[in-house]
Amino acid sequence: MTTVQNKLHWLAKVTVTRKATVVDPQGNTVLDALRHLRFDSAEHVRIGKYIEVSVSAADEAEARSEVAKMCETLLVNPVIEQYAFDLQQID
Amino acid sequence: MTTVQNKLHWLAKVTVTRKATVVDPQGNTVLDALRHLRFDSAEHVRIGKYIEVSVSAADEAEARSEVAKMCETLLVNPVIEQYAFDLQQID
Repeated sequence: MTTVQNKLHWLAKVTVTRKATVVDPQGNTVLDALRHLRFDSAEHVRIGKYIEVSVSAADEAEARSEVAKMCETLLVNPVIEQYAFDLQQID
Repeated sequence: MTTVQNKLHWLAKVTVTRKATVVDPQGNTVLDALRHLRFDSAEHVRIGKYIEVSVSAADEAEARSEVAKMCETLLVNPVIEQYAFDLQQID
């Protein structure tokens, strides 16, 4: 007798940001642009990436592990970047 | 008698994503790369921007309004993108 394993579907919302000690020229440029547009309230800008990945996995632990591996293998440069993600079931 | 208005400091975490109807070639490329790396669980990828903006404002409503104006003026292309943000006080 075989067991069919039902895979569930999960959505990971990943934010990738530069580590605090790494300069962010793109963020500084956007801050300058905001100041030129008279947004005097703007104090600081940091730019990162936002990635939504949907994965199939049997449970939350497996989904979380898969997404972490994807981040560490491809999506994030661990030398200068850090990441965090929220995971939700979408079925 | 003059009143000194104390400005508070706020951090907005803004995510900018393409609208659902707009194709996302960068996301498709990343999905292909994940599949090549044997991440068979990956089903769908969308890439967006993540922007942290700190602003000074007297209260939350003012901060929220400033950040929304920044998004609509500079940070977001409303033709193809949508945005959302969380706001927290950082003082």
